[in-house]
Amino acid sequence: MDLNKYKNLKRGIQDNYINVNPIQRGGVLTGEARKALLEFGDGYSVCDYCFDSRVDLVQKPPIRDFTMDVAKFLNVDEVRFTAGCRHAMWAIMHTITEPGNTIVLDSLAHYTSYLGAEANRLDVVEVPHTGHPMFHIDPEMYAQKFEEVKRHTGNLPVLALLTHVDSRYGNLANAEAVGKICKQYGVPLILNTAYSTGVMPVDAKKLRADFLTCSCHKSWAASAPIGILAASSEWSYKVFGKSRITGDWSGCSFNKKEVALFGCPPVFGAPIATLMASFPTVVERVKHWDEEVRKACYFVGEIEKIDGICQIGHKPKQHTLINIESPSFHAVAGKDRRKGYFLYRELKKRRIMGVRPGMSKSFEINTYGLSWEQVKYVAEAFKDIALKHGICVEP
Amino acid sequence: MDLNKYKNLKRGIQDNYINVNPIQRGGVLTGEARKALLEFGDGYSVCDYCFDSRVDLVQKPPIRDFTMDVAKFLNVDEVRFTAGCRHAMWAIMHTITEPGNTIVLDSLAHYTSYLGAEANRLDVVEVPHTGHPMFHIDPEMYAQKFEEVKRHTGNLPVLALLTHVDSRYGNLANAEAVGKICKQYGVPLILNTAYSTGVMPVDAKKLRADFLTCSCHKSWAASAPIGILAASSEWSYKVFGKSRITGDWSGCSFNKKEVALFGCPPVFGAPIATLMASFPTVVERVKHWDEEVRKACYFVGEIEKIDGICQIGHKPKQHTLINIESPSFHAVAGKDRRKGYFLYRELKKRRIMGVRPGMSKSFEINTYGLSWEQVKYVAEAFKDIALKHGICVEP
Repeated sequence: MDLNKYKNLKRGIQDNYINVNPIQRGGVLTGEARKALLEFGDGYSVCDYCFDSRVDLVQKPPIRDFTMDVAKFLNVDEVRFTAGCRHAMWAIMHTITEPGNTIVLDSLAHYTSYLGAEANRLDVVEVPHTGHPMFHIDPEMYAQKFEEVKRHTGNLPVLALLTHVDSRYGNLANAEAVGKICKQYGVPLILNTAYSTGVMPVDAKKLRADFLTCSCHKSWAASAPIGILAASSEWSYKVFGKSRITGDWSGCSFNKKEVALFGCPPVFGAPIATLMASFPTVVERVKHWDEEVRKACYFVGEIEKIDGICQIGHKPKQHTLINIESPSFHAVAGKDRRKGYFLYRELKKRRIMGVRPGMSKSFEINTYGLSWEQVKYVAEAFKDIALKHGICVEP
Repeated sequence: MDLNKYKNLKRGIQDNYINVNPIQRGGVLTGEARKALLEFGDGYSVCDYCFDSRVDLVQKPPIRDFTMDVAKFLNVDEVRFTAGCRHAMWAIMHTITEPGNTIVLDSLAHYTSYLGAEANRLDVVEVPHTGHPMFHIDPEMYAQKFEEVKRHTGNLPVLALLTHVDSRYGNLANAEAVGKICKQYGVPLILNTAYSTGVMPVDAKKLRADFLTCSCHKSWAASAPIGILAASSEWSYKVFGKSRITGDWSGCSFNKKEVALFGCPPVFGAPIATLMASFPTVVERVKHWDEEVRKACYFVGEIEKIDGICQIGHKPKQHTLINIESPSFHAVAGKDRRKGYFLYRELKKRRIMGVRPGMSKSFEINTYGLSWEQVKYVAEAFKDIALKHGICVEP
C-alpha cells in the first residue's frame, strides 16, 4: 500500500478561483462555519453534554433551540436533522407507506427520490413534464395521475412528492398549486427543497406541504452530510416514531430513539455545528433571493449573445441553477484536440471551475452567491472563449 | 429568533484538557485530518471530478484507490463508505433479510443494532451474557440460540450479529469462535467493529466475518459521520445491489447507484477527506495496540487502589474502554451539595473532561491514545479526588 497519496490532500481549487458548480454554490461555508468546523471537527464533539440520547435535544451547544428556530424559519411544526436529504426522503416513505404502495412524483425528481421509493419497494408513477425546451411540470397533472392511480389500483396514492427546484434545469415548480391539489385529495405531500430552502424563502404551511426535505450541504452553507426532515404535526408522530423494540433476554429498550432516523441521526460534530454557525447568515441571505435571480437572468442574457447558445427550462429564470445548450461549443469540441474538455480547460485558464470536465454540448452552472462582478467576469469569459474559437458573439 | 446564540460556537474544552470520553478517543482528528477538514469542508468538495456517479469511484482525490486500500487493511473483499456504522448495519439487514425473519445478536449489542432490526421489521433473539461482573458472551451460546430459533421457527436465523467490542464494558468478544460457529451453520455474520477497527488490528477473513461494520468518527480519526460497510464477495453483489427502478414515464434509470446506500453515500466532503488523511496514521497506530492495552491495565490497577472502586467486564482489560463501579464516590455524592456532579466538577478542575456529568455510581472512560504521562495524571487525579473526600487510597 502506498500511503503517501493520502498525505497533504488538495482539492486543486485555489482561493482566487470562481466555482460555478451547480451542486456546490449554496454549500460554500460561511466564515463562521469554518470556525465551527475546526472547533467541532472531532467525532461526537457536540455530545459532550448529551443527556437525552438524541442530538436534537442537546442544549450545549444550543441544538434544541436551533431545532425550534429552524422549524420557525421554515414555518413547519417539527424538525429533525438527518445525514442528508436522501435519508429524510427515505425515512418519510419508510414510515408512512407499505411495500407495494404507489407514490406519485414529478419526472424531474432527483434520483434519490426514486431510490428512496425503490428501497421501500414502492411503485412509482411519474407526473410528466412538457419536454424540451421548458421541461415544465403542470400542477394539474398531479390530479390526473391521482385519478389514474385510483382507477388502476383502487386507491389513491399514499404519498406525493414534488421537487421544488429540480437539479437539471433549475425550474421552480408551482408548489402551492400542487399542495392545494394534494390537500383536496388528502394525499400527503413531500416537497423536496434541496435547492430552495437555505437560499430562497420557503414557507411550508403556505405551500401546504406536509413534509419538507432539505439538503444543508447543498443549500445551507453546512459541511456534508446534513439534511432536514420537517413535518407537520399531523404526521410527525409517525415519521418520528420512537423505538418499540425490546430485547427478548436483556429487556433493553430505547424509547427515546427514533427508528427511521436510526436512533440518533449521526450528524454530531462538524455537520450540525457548521449548520448552526451559518444559520444567521442563511436567515439573512434568503431575503436577498430576488437579487440572486436578477444575477442569473443577467448571466443568461449575456451568454445567449453567443451564437447557438440557449438556456433551457423556465424562462425567465426563477432560480440560479442554469442549464445551457451549447451546440456551437460542441462543434468546436469536435475539431479541438482537447475534445469536450476544451471548455473545461479554457474556463480553468480563466480561473473558473465547476463546469463538468468533458461537457460541451450542454452544461449546468449556478451563479448563487457570486458577486455582480464575478457574474460579469464569468459571462465575459464564456464570450471570450467563443470568440477565440471563431463563434460569433453579439456585441 | 435570537440568532446571536449561534455566533462563535464553542465546545468549552480547552486545548490543554485531557478528554477521556469513551466515544471520543478514537475519533480525535490527526493533524493531517485537520488540514483536510479545512480543504474539503464545503459540501460536495470531493465531487469536483466525479465521473462515475458514486463517491467510492472518484479518482481525484484518490477515493477509488482508498476504497481498495481499506479493503486490504481489513482483509475483506469489498468496501463502501456510509453515513455512519448504523447505516451500514441497517443496509446489510435491509438487503439480506425479509420482514419477519429472525436474527441473533449478542445482548451487549449497541442500540443501533436493535434499531436496524426494528426498521427492517426483524425478530431479534439475544445471546445472553454472563451478567455481573464479567458480562461475558460465550461463543457456544450462538450455536445454542441458532438451534432454538430453528426449533421455534423451523428455520435457522437469516443473520447473526456480534459486537466485537461493546460500548458498555469494553469487552473484546471472541469473534473467531463465533465466526467458526456461524460458518458451521451457514449463518452470515456481521461483526460490528465500531470500537475495534481503526484502533486495533482486525482481519475479517481470519475472524470469518461475512460483514464488518466500522465507525470512522469513533475509531478512525475521521470527522462525523462516516462508517464502513465491508463485505465478502459472497455477499457484496447483494448488499451493494444496483438500482433497478425505471421511471414509468421518463424511463430514467440509475444503474450505477446502490440502493441500500441511497445511491451514493453522502460522505462527500469532510468525512471521507479526513478519513483518507488519517489513514496512514491509522495503519500505523493499530500496530501499537498492545501498548494501548497496557496503559488501560495500568490505569485500572491504579484506580482500583481507591477503596470501593472496581473495574467490571473482562479482566484483565483487552481494550481501552473501561467501566468502573464506584460506590465510594456515590456515597460522597449523597453528601456533597453538587450531588453526582461532584466527580465531573472535580475532574474538570483538574482539566479532565469526558466523564458524564452527574455520574458517580459507575462511569466509563477510555484511555485510547493518551500518553503514559496523561494516563498517570488521570489516575492520580482520581486518587487525589478520593483522598480529598475522605476515601482511603492504597499507597
